Amino acid sequence: MPSISEKGRKMPPSPIRKLVPFSEEAKRKGRIVYHLNIGQPDIPTPDVALNAIRNIDLKVIEYSHSAGNESYRCKLASYYQGIGINVGSGDIIVTTGGSEAILFAFMSCVNPDEEVITSEPFYANYNGFAVTAGINIVPVTSHIENDFALPPIEEIEKRITSRTRGIIICNPNNPTGYLYSEKELLLLKDIVKEHDLFLFSDEAYREFCYDGARHYSAMNLSGIEKNVILVDSVSKRYSECGVRIGALITRNREVISTAMKFAQARLSPPALGQIAGEASVDTPHEYFAEVNREYTARRNYMVDALNKIPGVYCPRPKGAFYTVARLPVDDSENFARWLLEEFEYKNQTVMVAPASGFYSTPGSGKNEVRIAYVLMIEDLKNAIETLAEALKAYPGKV
Amino acid sequence: MPSISEKGRKMPPSPIRKLVPFSEEAKRKGRIVYHLNIGQPDIPTPDVALNAIRNIDLKVIEYSHSAGNESYRCKLASYYQGIGINVGSGDIIVTTGGSEAILFAFMSCVNPDEEVITSEPFYANYNGFAVTAGINIVPVTSHIENDFALPPIEEIEKRITSRTRGIIICNPNNPTGYLYSEKELLLLKDIVKEHDLFLFSDEAYREFCYDGARHYSAMNLSGIEKNVILVDSVSKRYSECGVRIGALITRNREVISTAMKFAQARLSPPALGQIAGEASVDTPHEYFAEVNREYTARRNYMVDALNKIPGVYCPRPKGAFYTVARLPVDDSENFARWLLEEFEYKNQTVMVAPASGFYSTPGSGKNEVRIAYVLMIEDLKNAIETLAEALKAYPGKV
Repeated sequence: MPSISEKGRKMPPSPIRKLVPFSEEAKRKGRIVYHLNIGQPDIPTPDVALNAIRNIDLKVIEYSHSAGNESYRCKLASYYQGIGINVGSGDIIVTTGGSEAILFAFMSCVNPDEEVITSEPFYANYNGFAVTAGINIVPVTSHIENDFALPPIEEIEKRITSRTRGIIICNPNNPTGYLYSEKELLLLKDIVKEHDLFLFSDEAYREFCYDGARHYSAMNLSGIEKNVILVDSVSKRYSECGVRIGALITRNREVISTAMKFAQARLSPPALGQIAGEASVDTPHEYFAEVNREYTARRNYMVDALNKIPGVYCPRPKGAFYTVARLPVDDSENFARWLLEEFEYKNQTVMVAPASGFYSTPGSGKNEVRIAYVLMIEDLKNAIETLAEALKAYPGKV
Repeated sequence: MPSISEKGRKMPPSPIRKLVPFSEEAKRKGRIVYHLNIGQPDIPTPDVALNAIRNIDLKVIEYSHSAGNESYRCKLASYYQGIGINVGSGDIIVTTGGSEAILFAFMSCVNPDEEVITSEPFYANYNGFAVTAGINIVPVTSHIENDFALPPIEEIEKRITSRTRGIIICNPNNPTGYLYSEKELLLLKDIVKEHDLFLFSDEAYREFCYDGARHYSAMNLSGIEKNVILVDSVSKRYSECGVRIGALITRNREVISTAMKFAQARLSPPALGQIAGEASVDTPHEYFAEVNREYTARRNYMVDALNKIPGVYCPRPKGAFYTVARLPVDDSENFARWLLEEFEYKNQTVMVAPASGFYSTPGSGKNEVRIAYVLMIEDLKNAIETLAEALKAYPGKV
């Protein structure tokens, strides 16, 4: 029997999704399990999107253009123009989720064995796409004490070698919720320009900024227009993760024409998802206002409640719907497993994502967890109460 | 400005899709263009699939399980059992089109710089996925004189080196329409077993077998159960190319668990497409009978009409909906371009896919084209009449 590949062995398991078997274990025990581990929002998909799907008037569900339907790309361009990002439909390739946009960006811009720098903790699947592309993610550690702000620019520069091809940021950040400031982006611009790097900017959580904070897009950094590759997704913006529609956007025509070759090989992005995505651009403004109010309230509740638990520290992030909290535990992976396999409180337990899966420096994040506040406040309340009780009972408490 | 990657430069353009700009050129001239170049069937998607989409009862379009919805995998398993392929839902990973199944198979089973053998002409996008995975496709030439049958097994064995990890077949074949016999599959089994290779079997056109011929699946080769990776797709079976739903199926648990890590990194296959795919399993038998009658008639018309054109030779393939025909031209790429840019007959022209794009041996297939008979006979008639006139007028006729 032939054996699997080196890349297969190197491929990291998802730190979030590998918990699913434990979850099934928990369900078998008949307990309520609060999923704080996964970024699946409970926010309804906009009606305009659902109705577009229900009203499809197709006889044949055909391949679309490999770059996505022209009508959708035009509509997407108008969406970007509306938020101050000046691009045209020719600067956009519609992808199968933001995931594929990241993969196409890496495949098109980075050679095998070359490196892309990011701040850690970082979105764990960047590692998966890096293994697929045969490249390496080089981490620069950000710290909970600074709310996971951009590490000092000197720390980033120290990691730049002849093999460095780019920097990837996620803004607002998954897993930390940190929203990069204009000042931080301008610092990144300088080193990107000086070292002639690509700047991959994953802005899937752009719409999720709180406390009146404004999102500053890497696409608006002047002087590095050809260096910036925007990675985007409709998954979170319109709470339609399942449609698998994202986009790669850049003013670098060479990157567009190269990424198009990867796009052609996989023929087309999902046709039905594109219909949903195109209709979603017309989502009324009130939808976002309401979602923002809801997440702000959830974040405030969550952060306050976490910080009231003895030994817990949680920053108050300004974006996305995640936070990385420090817990008084020996090892958050053991703690997460124990929560599912051994613990219950009022017939409830909680799933959290151990933060170690979001670091690539070994040993980092061992007392941290990523928490997604994607549940109603009522549920969050029960979840946090359960978490507080669990921390009292956990044998590996420190 | 940083430059694109080596893989980006190596990535082959799609031999079918790169013609699209010419097509736009042709349209600008106001001509009718018959698309014989692309495998986009005009057959209606089954009503059960369209209705399932129209009746979606979701509030949130969520991520599915990374391996696909459990309900769909169970239904798929019953589909396979119904056609004599004995697999369970745990042997199946639902993918984003057959494309992703091929990529996951290559990534999971083949190391960078290792080789996979196939007969040429072959589905050109295998090259694209090979570049993505950093592996090499090694061709063994099949010949139009033998209807593109499996090359002599000694020819295949000659290509086996220490770097060979597998063989990929497409059965029925795209681009040739050739349907491999049980005898040919048993020959492949022997060398796969002897050299402990993976056998990747792309059976996306399984339902398209004519003249009463029976499809023999590689999954039913006994003694190499752990070597066979089935790649499948609903695109052609149910004429729903746009849903982007395929599957990787294998009884090799190590490959399943490795491919799952790639599947987790991209989160989930399309949710809406899975709803269509699951409903499609209930497509009534008469649908397939009618489709088979239609394609048989188209093939018969097409092959007969092509062979009546002086200097043209076209085999009568038993499967899929393609045929590779030999034309009396100097270079089919020039001919295809000339058809679009220079020619018209009764305000019509034709798009064909130059076969050279399906060969990797340089210079091969220069006087061959792939023709997809995915149009109604009425249109095929006009298309072939136009092609015949074009061959009279083409300056590079030989």
